Amino acid sequence: MSTNKIKHIGIFTSGGDSPGMNAALYSIAKSAKVKGIKISGFRKGYEGLIDGDFLTLKSHDLQKLVHLGGTILKTARSKRFMELEGRKKAFQTLKANKIDALIAIGGDGTFKGLLAFSEICDIPFIGIPGTIDNDLAGTDYTLGFDSAVNTAIENIDKIRDTAESHNRVFIVEVMGRDSGYIGIHSGLTVGADAILIPESGKDLIYLLEKIKNYESEDAFLVVVSEGDEIGAELVASKIKEMNPNVDLRITKLGHVQRGGNPSALDRMLGIRMGVAAVEEILKGNTNKMVGFLNNQLKLTPFNKVVKQHQIKDELNRLLELFSK
Amino acid sequence: MSTNKIKHIGIFTSGGDSPGMNAALYSIAKSAKVKGIKISGFRKGYEGLIDGDFLTLKSHDLQKLVHLGGTILKTARSKRFMELEGRKKAFQTLKANKIDALIAIGGDGTFKGLLAFSEICDIPFIGIPGTIDNDLAGTDYTLGFDSAVNTAIENIDKIRDTAESHNRVFIVEVMGRDSGYIGIHSGLTVGADAILIPESGKDLIYLLEKIKNYESEDAFLVVVSEGDEIGAELVASKIKEMNPNVDLRITKLGHVQRGGNPSALDRMLGIRMGVAAVEEILKGNTNKMVGFLNNQLKLTPFNKVVKQHQIKDELNRLLELFSK
Amino acid sequence: MSTNKIKHIGIFTSGGDSPGMNAALYSIAKSAKVKGIKISGFRKGYEGLIDGDFLTLKSHDLQKLVHLGGTILKTARSKRFMELEGRKKAFQTLKANKIDALIAIGGDGTFKGLLAFSEICDIPFIGIPGTIDNDLAGTDYTLGFDSAVNTAIENIDKIRDTAESHNRVFIVEVMGRDSGYIGIHSGLTVGADAILIPESGKDLIYLLEKIKNYESEDAFLVVVSEGDEIGAELVASKIKEMNPNVDLRITKLGHVQRGGNPSALDRMLGIRMGVAAVEEILKGNTNKMVGFLNNQLKLTPFNKVVKQHQIKDELNRLLELFSK
Amino acid sequence: MSTNKIKHIGIFTSGGDSPGMNAALYSIAKSAKVKGIKISGFRKGYEGLIDGDFLTLKSHDLQKLVHLGGTILKTARSKRFMELEGRKKAFQTLKANKIDALIAIGGDGTFKGLLAFSEICDIPFIGIPGTIDNDLAGTDYTLGFDSAVNTAIENIDKIRDTAESHNRVFIVEVMGRDSGYIGIHSGLTVGADAILIPESGKDLIYLLEKIKNYESEDAFLVVVSEGDEIGAELVASKIKEMNPNVDLRITKLGHVQRGGNPSALDRMLGIRMGVAAVEEILKGNTNKMVGFLNNQLKLTPFNKVVKQHQIKDELNRLLELFSK
Repeated sequence: MSTNKIKHIGIFTSGGDSPGMNAALYSIAKSAKVKGIKISGFRKGYEGLIDGDFLTLKSHDLQKLVHLGGTILKTARSKRFMELEGRKKAFQTLKANKIDALIAIGGDGTFKGLLAFSEICDIPFIGIPGTIDNDLAGTDYTLGFDSAVNTAIENIDKIRDTAESHNRVFIVEVMGRDSGYIGIHSGLTVGADAILIPESGKDLIYLLEKIKNYESEDAFLVVVSEGDEIGAELVASKIKEMNPNVDLRITKLGHVQRGGNPSALDRMLGIRMGVAAVEEILKGNTNKMVGFLNNQLKLTPFNKVVKQHQIKDELNRLLELFSK
Repeated sequence: MSTNKIKHIGIFTSGGDSPGMNAALYSIAKSAKVKGIKISGFRKGYEGLIDGDFLTLKSHDLQKLVHLGGTILKTARSKRFMELEGRKKAFQTLKANKIDALIAIGGDGTFKGLLAFSEICDIPFIGIPGTIDNDLAGTDYTLGFDSAVNTAIENIDKIRDTAESHNRVFIVEVMGRDSGYIGIHSGLTVGADAILIPESGKDLIYLLEKIKNYESEDAFLVVVSEGDEIGAELVASKIKEMNPNVDLRITKLGHVQRGGNPSALDRMLGIRMGVAAVEEILKGNTNKMVGFLNNQLKLTPFNKVVKQHQIKDELNRLLELFSK
Repeated sequence: MSTNKIKHIGIFTSGGDSPGMNAALYSIAKSAKVKGIKISGFRKGYEGLIDGDFLTLKSHDLQKLVHLGGTILKTARSKRFMELEGRKKAFQTLKANKIDALIAIGGDGTFKGLLAFSEICDIPFIGIPGTIDNDLAGTDYTLGFDSAVNTAIENIDKIRDTAESHNRVFIVEVMGRDSGYIGIHSGLTVGADAILIPESGKDLIYLLEKIKNYESEDAFLVVVSEGDEIGAELVASKIKEMNPNVDLRITKLGHVQRGGNPSALDRMLGIRMGVAAVEEILKGNTNKMVGFLNNQLKLTPFNKVVKQHQIKDELNRLLELFSK
Repeated sequence: MSTNKIKHIGIFTSGGDSPGMNAALYSIAKSAKVKGIKISGFRKGYEGLIDGDFLTLKSHDLQKLVHLGGTILKTARSKRFMELEGRKKAFQTLKANKIDALIAIGGDGTFKGLLAFSEICDIPFIGIPGTIDNDLAGTDYTLGFDSAVNTAIENIDKIRDTAESHNRVFIVEVMGRDSGYIGIHSGLTVGADAILIPESGKDLIYLLEKIKNYESEDAFLVVVSEGDEIGAELVASKIKEMNPNVDLRITKLGHVQRGGNPSALDRMLGIRMGVAAVEEILKGNTNKMVGFLNNQLKLTPFNKVVKQHQIKDELNRLLELFSK
């Protein structure tokens, strides 16, 4: 369709929530307002599309919410949208409300949903990568990652206080769903003695080598990412095997990493991505995710937005250096 | 002994560390300096007394550390001090270094140790209650409690963001070692839907009644204290029994509650208790803990400083009201 | 009137806002709900009463806002309510909406307004002390004070970093409107080298004595309260007179102290005061402020709620000791 | 000289301090340790070089300080080093202690000093850009900028609470020394109604246009950078001219922006720059600053590291869009 006819954009947040989503919503609404475009926000991801559950978003109202974590549109995973039946209902909603384009903030699953939807719905779709895990191809930073790392390190800094007071070994598990980005960033920036991430095999060897000679005359801080084949309990048991006398504690930071006021970087990222999303729709792009690679705007087709399981070379070198 | 001969006070931190201990050390050193008394700080609790491991504390240096969590003297539990042999060695340390009085920051176990020590060591002993659990008789506030609650609620506020974005049930476990003070304070102040503490039996019934009708159109936040007969997993399993379709997550805040920069109240408490400890020594008091009951200084003999397992009436009434 | 006929309570926030006001609103709404009482919240203090601008408050909605600073009812100073004409209009609003009692969160000016109002309006009035300045007779803590002190010290801790890196003299001005409570609490708890408050004359002498010998081999941190006869510039000029070579910086923390998520203590205080306010109305009390003195609930008639200009003895002794 | 003979590197921090400097020190010490190089840290910038005031830095000790603001080496501006006499003394210090290379963390003034020093001292010099102002050519991020912005927005978020409670106009002045980077980043990310920076002239016109129609039915938040021809008072007076009835408050955040625990990004930046600095010395580079442009390591000769007075295009476009 001709993009100069875009009068009404629908937006929604989908998948796991992450800090910065409200900033992106504000940015989209502001960009749209300046261009005379109306914005409707669907509640609970694809569920709101199917059920026609939405509200008109005003940039003036969203401006006051830019600093808040979570997403005011709520989010959900939708089983119904995985069926053609559900997608047809969503299409009816868009048609009935004369929505000309869609912007989705979410992860690879969200964008796969849009790809499937595009088979029956011929309006532009643009995606914004929102996940704390930072594991999507096509962008150096996903929305929420920097906030999650900041929350992690503020909490690990607190743990360091008690670890040093007791000369204890602490194992802190951070999030990542099999991605080591939060682990490697938070581990390096708290001065951890060992950092264990799902993508790397050597780390545990380094750790056990170090812990063998550990004399309990100091704290020993391990940061480990959650993962199918890794995690705090596994590491704890390996350490106990190697050195049974160790005074060891585990803390799993958990869902605190998903919430909280977004960091400056995530708010800025939300703003930049929101502006870009509206612009790309007006340029006629569709089925693409906006991202920033080496600080340059980069569009990635939805079918190329896969989970990345490779840590960047520079990070790997840092990991190796600081494990020594 | 005559208290006007007090020239040299030894201090140490013992048991679990808690935010505010460094503020108390500063206050003791400052009070002592003004009165011309020397202060030596023993490292790692009773271990430092036994081993003669100590340093001279200057109020000018400690002044820069008043805002830091943990304890710069480190802390430990000492098996050796539980034996007469260990206490005799500690006595030698004090004698050899002409220490006229001791101030200990710790919990009921710490003070029991001093009671045993007083059988062979005839100098004044004063205690300062330092524990995040707030479960000691003789004071309304223990050092570190307010900081722990503030850390808990800042993190639970973050969890609320993601809970509301997903309309999820969240069970957040806070610390307390069988004491419900952190649970009840943090639960009330985050607006929890249910608060479960070890001291109360009715709460779980209220909770299950509420969750039975829970429709997942909103978040549902449960704060539960750790305890032998309670805890996040137990509550989760009970909820799942009652309502198997609930989308539920657990986060155990863990040791983050023990660290971090102390709150204003805890720094002030450390300062007030430090001043009082030095004054009470100079008045000739011994084997007593300083505390504040209804904001008035209160001395409690060490043998009366037991763990309290009763929540104050006003709190119980609030708990009942806000559980409805 | 008979208090068992209380069916509908009006509430509003007035004067300067302070952290914890939303927690108090939640608590009032929850207490009222349990007792079957309806709650209406008037916007912008007395202005809302005059204009009939209000909304029904539901405890379920307020529960999600307990952690937020500011006041969702907004606040204002009302010139119109100082005229009989304005108060008559407010009375009409109450009558028209069958409001049986009023709870006001504010300061001494707010309560004076209620006293004047009581001459023409015969329903129970209860006040909750909300001000960061902590300068009201009848309570040890006003709502918002603990949060303001925590905000002040978190910021002064940051200033300490740069002060120590440069060995600079820093003068930090905190709020208080001629009351020294924020100054004395924040000054003591950051380990300030000098603390200057409006209520005390000797402090400046101590400070100048200290600064005379200051050798710039260390940071020197001064905390000063705002006040008519005191303040950062005055102190700076006195220091410069005494020691012209000093490398000195000024920071006035300003209105950041009025906002931000309330501390645990302020949320709890708001909850306790909210519950007490509803209970006291139901007991038939009127024209009184609820407060806590030495941790006990205390009612103070509105005409006795004056600004206090005397720092408590214990604080004065601490101030003197830590100024040495 | 041959770089494989580098056995001993001297480091110092100079000019204004900024959060992340300790992380960089840790990273340099760790990198050096792995390569068998000794590290000495000079106190108070060039003053320590002149006076031979230094200490040996161990990566194990620095590891515990990575999260702290300020610089443990202290910093200063040195008049003596601007004279040849001072530089000669510094050269003697380096020679006497067999220091083979120097790493300086500071700003353009610091690097100019090194350039002058290189005329008499023939060892490799590498610079790391440390300033909160983010105004140096050769890097997208200077060390400390992200932390300063995060501190600014956390405080402005608090101001928003009270601004909205009172429907007030607030003018918040942030730092920058004639550079608008902190202003534009913090203004966008708090949802300011107007952002004024030294580099732009049009902003004030937009602002006055907006404020003309301001009806006090809402808060109005202005973020303004400090600058010679701009600042909070100027803006306040212009607003008052345009609309005399406005209820307006000013807060200047001041030096809090220079301190505080560094953000995740700044810690990471310090780590990355520290590693790069050691590597570049070993490669034989000299008189260059390490930086990251578009996320790629970039060396800039000291004589090209000038203050930038141009805001990037993308930021200018955002500024224009969000000012509408």
